[in-house]
Amino acid sequence: MNILEIISKKRDSKELTKEEIEYFVQEYTKGEIKDYQASALIMAIYINGMSDREITDLTLAMAYSGEVLDLSKFGTNVVDKHSTGGVGDKVSIILLPIIASLGVPVAKMSGRGLGFTGGTVDKMESIPGYKTDINVNEFISNVEKVGISMIGQTMNLAPADKKIYELRDSISCVENIPLIASSIMSKKIASGANKIVLDITVGNGAFMKTREDAEKLANEMIKIGKLANREVKCILTAMDEPLGYSVGNSIEVIEAINFLKGDMPEDLKEVVLELGAYMIRIAGKGEDIEENKKKMLENILNGKAYRKFEEMVGNQGGDISYLQDTRKFEKSKYISAVVTEKTGYVQEIDAEEIGKLSCYLGAGRIHKEDKIEPTVGIILNKKVGDKVEEQGFLAYICANEEKKLREAERKILEIYKIEEKEVKKNPVIIEII
Amino acid sequence: MNILEIISKKRDSKELTKEEIEYFVQEYTKGEIKDYQASALIMAIYINGMSDREITDLTLAMAYSGEVLDLSKFGTNVVDKHSTGGVGDKVSIILLPIIASLGVPVAKMSGRGLGFTGGTVDKMESIPGYKTDINVNEFISNVEKVGISMIGQTMNLAPADKKIYELRDSISCVENIPLIASSIMSKKIASGANKIVLDITVGNGAFMKTREDAEKLANEMIKIGKLANREVKCILTAMDEPLGYSVGNSIEVIEAINFLKGDMPEDLKEVVLELGAYMIRIAGKGEDIEENKKKMLENILNGKAYRKFEEMVGNQGGDISYLQDTRKFEKSKYISAVVTEKTGYVQEIDAEEIGKLSCYLGAGRIHKEDKIEPTVGIILNKKVGDKVEEQGFLAYICANEEKKLREAERKILEIYKIEEKEVKKNPVIIEII
Repeated sequence: MNILEIISKKRDSKELTKEEIEYFVQEYTKGEIKDYQASALIMAIYINGMSDREITDLTLAMAYSGEVLDLSKFGTNVVDKHSTGGVGDKVSIILLPIIASLGVPVAKMSGRGLGFTGGTVDKMESIPGYKTDINVNEFISNVEKVGISMIGQTMNLAPADKKIYELRDSISCVENIPLIASSIMSKKIASGANKIVLDITVGNGAFMKTREDAEKLANEMIKIGKLANREVKCILTAMDEPLGYSVGNSIEVIEAINFLKGDMPEDLKEVVLELGAYMIRIAGKGEDIEENKKKMLENILNGKAYRKFEEMVGNQGGDISYLQDTRKFEKSKYISAVVTEKTGYVQEIDAEEIGKLSCYLGAGRIHKEDKIEPTVGIILNKKVGDKVEEQGFLAYICANEEKKLREAERKILEIYKIEEKEVKKNPVIIEII
Repeated sequence: MNILEIISKKRDSKELTKEEIEYFVQEYTKGEIKDYQASALIMAIYINGMSDREITDLTLAMAYSGEVLDLSKFGTNVVDKHSTGGVGDKVSIILLPIIASLGVPVAKMSGRGLGFTGGTVDKMESIPGYKTDINVNEFISNVEKVGISMIGQTMNLAPADKKIYELRDSISCVENIPLIASSIMSKKIASGANKIVLDITVGNGAFMKTREDAEKLANEMIKIGKLANREVKCILTAMDEPLGYSVGNSIEVIEAINFLKGDMPEDLKEVVLELGAYMIRIAGKGEDIEENKKKMLENILNGKAYRKFEEMVGNQGGDISYLQDTRKFEKSKYISAVVTEKTGYVQEIDAEEIGKLSCYLGAGRIHKEDKIEPTVGIILNKKVGDKVEEQGFLAYICANEEKKLREAERKILEIYKIEEKEVKKNPVIIEII
């Protein structure tokens, strides 16, 4: 077997064998196959496509290219959750303690943010003392002890996927369903899950801009799941405006804490309950979706979900007094309300633009090595469909530099589209696949 | 402009602008665009193709990526000749002195051999003292003085083509007509020619295995020529068996010298006269092809062509006593006749196999840095269509190592296909385009 033959097969639209795909993934991970050769093959895959069998073989080869987390001691119903990314997406921080409080074991490794979408690990680190870089043994024993642990990616999970993803990014081969699907699924499989609920975001603030593309991606991942013997459920959710009100790091954690204490923004609530209800079902803890939602709401209102979060945070060195009194969180140097001259209804708040603005303020990274500022970001005061009066507050900017504050104030006024006509809000849950 | 946009356009089968193609070629030559990015673009070009306009822009951008030889002092009818490569191809060494003897100025830069086809420069260097690495000024003044100079590629001609060609070789993107056509034409344009006669070889010993592909390549190069304002004539010639009798370096030079002295193998004669007649026509020295052939033959028979060759060799430091008496050329350590047990007619002598065998004996290079052995090679005694008697000599092996000699003897018997049925030889000139 050699890479030239493999490249020329895919170049000529032929199907690669499992052995050829494994050879490519292994040798590329080792560096025996060069970037420029991988690049040619990936472009050929992008243009000529792959069969479901090929995509599954690619997924599994990438999943097993490094360490694979063994969660078998938690049984055969280990559920993971993944989102294809959104702005203001604090769903994991809220949802996972809730389902842990209902007896579903949660062992969650999350990524850091890159580009205009934030990362759960960055957000969690704004809780003073909370450790996200613990080793695997401690991670597993935390799950055994308190039923939940949320950490960063400390293991060498799916290194082939990481390498291929970085290459795709530098050769215009990102937006391709077989490649996206295999990338996501390889990481999930390497993280030890055998049941996976996927939140596929759709809209201008998401990877998938159209429902049609999101459906294609969902179906592809379900097919991979079937062939790779993993149960996959996909929930398509809207990502046109940010989810909830806060976009940043500590301000998103505060919103999550408030949610667990019962203060639930409507769109966030819908997403959390829908994803959670399916997680509970595939974990074998309840068939009835509406019943599952009820149980989740119950555990929010009776404080069990919040206490599970507190327990997890405390167990990993976090200062829980910040959860008990969120006013203790450090604030950004400037907090400024943006006032509009317009009256009418909010027609649109472009999520991607808000994400980029938050990133500009310092909440996100442009390059991998950038440091983030935990306190900065944007707190929306009005969302799509809300009525705006003259001199009404649209949003609050949290910034550490005056120049950036001023620029963000100006930008927010551009991002909010306000017109006289009333707006009917689109549902946030688009489809279950 | 940036490379990611350029890659994604071609990935999506869109046409690239002249500016985009120039940007790619310049920045890749400089190293600003990385190999893995060029690789993705080249694969996208391979799969999605290019318009004639794009191919021409690519050709010109590569041609002007380095130095361009200025031959304008020789007028507007500067003719170059190029072959897509063959085994036993000593056409340039014979043809160019002939047309120089008819008053057509010849300024020829040739390449070295790589793989199973030899290079004119390697062959010429087997003449003791003959210098092929002279500088451009000397090269031009040689042409002015004696009307002809043949040297190696001493200038930095079309470096982009060199870089792209090497990359294509390592990503399975060699056999692609737009890329082959632009590569050949860029080198010819950089070498200063404005009129080009192309010998497109067809058959198992050639790049183009079928007449159909050769025609496509010819048409592509003619189109590039039109758009780039260069007159191009293509002669398709057969390359199923080696051209002439000798395959090697000094032994090919000896065959060329003998040809110029009047000893002309039939297939070689046809190719030399056909290409030469068209070179004379496009140089404006004679419209009538048959008339041109007659003039060429005349100058062979009256010794003018041979004397022109002697003049060129002497002018570049070569020892002309070797031309006057070719027995002076150093011989290989072993020369052995291969005898067959079979009787019948030679059906086939696979040119590529002979080329590889010659390379194995030391006449060619596998890697760029390999040294060649000038004296080794194969001298055919029988060609396709020839009758073979039992105990007849098929060929002579010239080798410097006994082990290689024995292996080559064994191989030759495999390569010669001999059967009882008589064989009609195919014409060596296939088509003029």
